[in-house]
Amino acid sequence: MAKSPETEHPVKAFGWAARDPSAHFSTFNFSRRVTGERDVQVKVLYCGVCHSDLHMAKNEWGLTQFPIVPGHEITGMVTEVGSKVEKFKVGDKVGIGGMVGSCRECDQCANDLENYCSKFILTYGARYTDGTVTYGGYSDKIVADEHFVIRWPENLPLDAGAPLLCAGITTYSPLKYYGLDKPGLNIGVVGLGGLGHVAVKFAKAFGSKVTVISTSINKRQEATERLGADSFLVSRDQEAMEAAVGTLDGIIDTVSVSHPLLPLVNLLKPHSHLIMVGAAEKPLEVPMLPLIFGRKSISGSGIGGLKETQEMVDFAAKHNISADIEIISMDYINTAMKRLEKSDVKYRFVIDVANSLKVE
Amino acid sequence: MAKSPETEHPVKAFGWAARDPSAHFSTFNFSRRVTGERDVQVKVLYCGVCHSDLHMAKNEWGLTQFPIVPGHEITGMVTEVGSKVEKFKVGDKVGIGGMVGSCRECDQCANDLENYCSKFILTYGARYTDGTVTYGGYSDKIVADEHFVIRWPENLPLDAGAPLLCAGITTYSPLKYYGLDKPGLNIGVVGLGGLGHVAVKFAKAFGSKVTVISTSINKRQEATERLGADSFLVSRDQEAMEAAVGTLDGIIDTVSVSHPLLPLVNLLKPHSHLIMVGAAEKPLEVPMLPLIFGRKSISGSGIGGLKETQEMVDFAAKHNISADIEIISMDYINTAMKRLEKSDVKYRFVIDVANSLKVE
Repeated sequence: MAKSPETEHPVKAFGWAARDPSAHFSTFNFSRRVTGERDVQVKVLYCGVCHSDLHMAKNEWGLTQFPIVPGHEITGMVTEVGSKVEKFKVGDKVGIGGMVGSCRECDQCANDLENYCSKFILTYGARYTDGTVTYGGYSDKIVADEHFVIRWPENLPLDAGAPLLCAGITTYSPLKYYGLDKPGLNIGVVGLGGLGHVAVKFAKAFGSKVTVISTSINKRQEATERLGADSFLVSRDQEAMEAAVGTLDGIIDTVSVSHPLLPLVNLLKPHSHLIMVGAAEKPLEVPMLPLIFGRKSISGSGIGGLKETQEMVDFAAKHNISADIEIISMDYINTAMKRLEKSDVKYRFVIDVANSLKVE
Repeated sequence: MAKSPETEHPVKAFGWAARDPSAHFSTFNFSRRVTGERDVQVKVLYCGVCHSDLHMAKNEWGLTQFPIVPGHEITGMVTEVGSKVEKFKVGDKVGIGGMVGSCRECDQCANDLENYCSKFILTYGARYTDGTVTYGGYSDKIVADEHFVIRWPENLPLDAGAPLLCAGITTYSPLKYYGLDKPGLNIGVVGLGGLGHVAVKFAKAFGSKVTVISTSINKRQEATERLGADSFLVSRDQEAMEAAVGTLDGIIDTVSVSHPLLPLVNLLKPHSHLIMVGAAEKPLEVPMLPLIFGRKSISGSGIGGLKETQEMVDFAAKHNISADIEIISMDYINTAMKRLEKSDVKYRFVIDVANSLKVE
């Protein structure tokens, strides 16, 4: 008989889980594996609440195995290291992002693109190499192979920096890959949420002129005054959208609900990319003629490899980039999820796990 | 009062036009401009029948001004040159493809990408710089700026080579642009029609292993035996499609009717492109997660610039590449269009204009 989550491993662990697609969270006793030769055990200090956590808890992508303990924007402190661990010692500050494993042998892995390895293992809700389900950072501790653990820069805050491990790398990586990190480019950012507000910060740090595109005029002041965007487009304002046709060198689209892509494609210059980093549940409609007439692309991008994630947090530390966050306690998570659903957060909830998780 | 097509220019011309979206063709008296300083006048010898001719005649893209004289796969002989023409002399064999004008000043034009100039002028059905409508190669003669005229290689047939001016460059250009011209790559070609069969030939000439993907098992023999494709996938054969997941370095999708893209995206390796060169009337549905998980793109590509078009016909001549054609007379065009609609042609109709167009 398969062992229960509580007894399958020797190390007691505790967190909050959703048991079904109602996505209601409650306390959950489970277990973690013994720290292996190349593993580190990490005491979770902070964990960001990513929109994927909600998608997964509601099983909107059809991938979820319940119970699910989300959380892949984890910062913490190393509490134990395996005998062959080289990068870390007890007491080190570290980060763990969206994945905890990959095959380490394929072309993708060999090129530091573990995130595109066909066998990559999500930090939560996936099967680990030993057959057990992975649980994320809404919990007191986590054990991970050191390869998938990020060194935390001294001056990067552990709370506001945590969302960089998903929201940060998800926007930083495509800006780099598609050559959108050169000064003077015109970059569009669609949606001003957890991902979008960090995308603005990275694009500004690269020296871009940033245009935020949003359905809500209410975000104009935030975008231009607080986050330093250079301009703001309301996507329903046809006149303004028309005036901006063909002006952008690239667009990062962070919106994870259905929305029209044609107006965004039209904003692009020829040969450029509308980069989708938010995944809507349903397929989106894409008109082909505008892609053909401008040699434009609709492209996906998902988090980043470990090397690039390390580079990204180091870059963020150097440029004082972190997320704008609202710190919450663990038992606020159900309210937080309801607010997240309404985009009622500026811009990321981060759970103060160490100070609020009461082990039962 | 606006002048009629017959009298707006001084040079009498004659062709076949569709008058309305019924797309029935009949004889049409119109006129061509006097050969300007940088113009050449060309006697049309052959003209390919592109699927866009049918789309445009039926006004399926909503762009058509009637009457419309299609034809943008034109080969012919220079009959007159303007005083400042440098590339051509009377008697030269030439080709004219999908466009006859562009601004010549923008970044795209400066980079030999006139096809992506926002002011590029289609060979037929568009407004020329003088305000008159352009008419294509279903006609006895055409006048064009020499910049938009291609030198025809000695050993490239004028009939079977004509379709290269659209079908050829449309597939050659993205194979080059997306780095799919390196030997040993695995290239997919979706649809084995006018564009697809030429795509197979170019990809083979680049040293690729070519997989043809088609809805019809009947095309297997043609694809592998006659055209030299290395393998063949029936898109409805789920088992075969599943077995080929993640094997292709790039796909040229030539299908211009609605079809599912997800199975094609799944065939791609990470970081690669599904390149759309056939434009369906309606937007296609695109699932975002598979793009995100593989950093894949759905990309458009439309014909090519003049420099690249010249390079393409020279490459074709060197590698003995031309289209597989069925020669027809001008008065067969209505039947040809009906057959084209049913994909009943291997693989391109080419009108023997010079020998079959009876000027009335």
